[in-house]
Amino acid sequence: MNRVMITGASGFLGRHCLAALAGRASEIHAVTRFGACGASTHTHAVDLFDAERVRALLGEVRPTHLLHLAWVTTPGVYWTSAENVRWVEASLHLLRAFAEHGGRRVVMAGSCAEYDWSAGRCCHETTTPLRPATLYGVCKNALRTVLEGFANREGLSAAWGRIFFLYGPHEHPQRLTPSVIRALLASEPARCSSGVQRRDFLHVEDAADAFAALLDSDLCGPVNIASGTAIPIAALVRRLADLIGRPDLVRLGELPTAAGEPPLLVADVGRLRDELCWSPRFDLDAGLARTIDWWQAWLGAPRAAG
Amino acid sequence: MNRVMITGASGFLGRHCLAALAGRASEIHAVTRFGACGASTHTHAVDLFDAERVRALLGEVRPTHLLHLAWVTTPGVYWTSAENVRWVEASLHLLRAFAEHGGRRVVMAGSCAEYDWSAGRCCHETTTPLRPATLYGVCKNALRTVLEGFANREGLSAAWGRIFFLYGPHEHPQRLTPSVIRALLASEPARCSSGVQRRDFLHVEDAADAFAALLDSDLCGPVNIASGTAIPIAALVRRLADLIGRPDLVRLGELPTAAGEPPLLVADVGRLRDELCWSPRFDLDAGLARTIDWWQAWLGAPRAAG
Repeated sequence: MNRVMITGASGFLGRHCLAALAGRASEIHAVTRFGACGASTHTHAVDLFDAERVRALLGEVRPTHLLHLAWVTTPGVYWTSAENVRWVEASLHLLRAFAEHGGRRVVMAGSCAEYDWSAGRCCHETTTPLRPATLYGVCKNALRTVLEGFANREGLSAAWGRIFFLYGPHEHPQRLTPSVIRALLASEPARCSSGVQRRDFLHVEDAADAFAALLDSDLCGPVNIASGTAIPIAALVRRLADLIGRPDLVRLGELPTAAGEPPLLVADVGRLRDELCWSPRFDLDAGLARTIDWWQAWLGAPRAAG
Repeated sequence: MNRVMITGASGFLGRHCLAALAGRASEIHAVTRFGACGASTHTHAVDLFDAERVRALLGEVRPTHLLHLAWVTTPGVYWTSAENVRWVEASLHLLRAFAEHGGRRVVMAGSCAEYDWSAGRCCHETTTPLRPATLYGVCKNALRTVLEGFANREGLSAAWGRIFFLYGPHEHPQRLTPSVIRALLASEPARCSSGVQRRDFLHVEDAADAFAALLDSDLCGPVNIASGTAIPIAALVRRLADLIGRPDLVRLGELPTAAGEPPLLVADVGRLRDELCWSPRFDLDAGLARTIDWWQAWLGAPRAAG
């Protein structure tokens, strides 16, 4: 890879992608609204909703590769936010500017929310129908279809990495894993739903490595970025508690389960494993331990024996 | 209807929609790049790709109803043009601005190109799969899905009129019906493909009336705008020649049939007929005669006995 441009570079996944790209690209250009992204990276403080600035930036950098991760991700908001529509517009504008300035390979972040969640096991769309139930999923799926059609027309190489459930350092503190870890590290009860629903969890550093490998490949179309294994949310919570040494503080069933939560969401990872020849570095225990360590350092909290 | 805004108002369909809307709306605001649209209409010469101007216009007019027809339609170009992507962006931006300024009811122009053309008979998507084969169809379909999701979120009332094959006054001279009429009126041979493929033709004034009725209703979701009857293209050509009185000039089979032309494309018009309670005014003979008359007046050509 020559010149890689990455958007959402200061986000949860983006910042880990920067590290994963470091060994693969000769130049990395990080686009973020939030300032510098490290010494080895060219940082561009550009608002992707500013169409003129985006066009000027693409003309200046002329990236050969584009990893587009930026999107609305605010917990509790992003599923239904009207910002999703704005991100479709901004993403298409970015894509056209990329193509017009000589771009060759693009990877964008999709979501398991594009699938029909009643399916449980999500295969790439030849088998599992795409029937997003949220505006977020609708907008991601619409963007994917236009990306595919436009890439065919322009001779661009394009892939779409469908993210499932990530955890790890820098996750938003209100989300499941951080909120459980923070409670337990503070010796407070971790109040959860019953957590019987099974989900496919992947450590964010693995996800970032998969995206970097995908960008560096010529694999096209949708690719699930996931572990391929589902565990009950309750098992994740209990494992965190065991690692922290406070299983006594786990309160499963004290919160209601959100409406519409399907019992199972797990990815078919055939393309990731067999076509990209990629597999994760961290198993769940190693990934969770690494995440707890990060939160301890971040919060300056003591860790109980575990 | 109070204040209606119509885009693409100087286009083939749009100019007829202006006439069809005249009796229904208290104020009509026509958006076009090409100047005035008649005395009873407020005309706004605004480029829909100019996001700031669009936002300002919507804030100024505050339309209650939006009929969005504008799109790339250049014959031979629009199926694959990258402009299709730009129209997705512009349409979504327009939609958001409409909602933000109090808009209540929106109808957009879709296309039979969204359907899987191997189906032949195109029912609303519960039965016929949406599998567009062109960038045009991909972009229209992507826009539809986001419109639907966004309208649900915003409490907007939204419908999507899927256009099949229109003919009538003001059609682009390079398209089928005008090129046959022009050749025959000029006493030149009308060279055509074999024309065995059957298509669903509707007179453009009927289509415009259907769009006006749809905008004036509260019917939501996709609605095929078509006659519900398919005839071979060759039959259309022969009928034109009979009406003009020059069947001797018809040269069927002299041009190759374009690759990928399906044998049959016909609309299920159940929603149009039973839910909108709408039916066309013109049968094929009346519609074609009207079209020939218009071309004769336009070209100043003599009409042979027919």
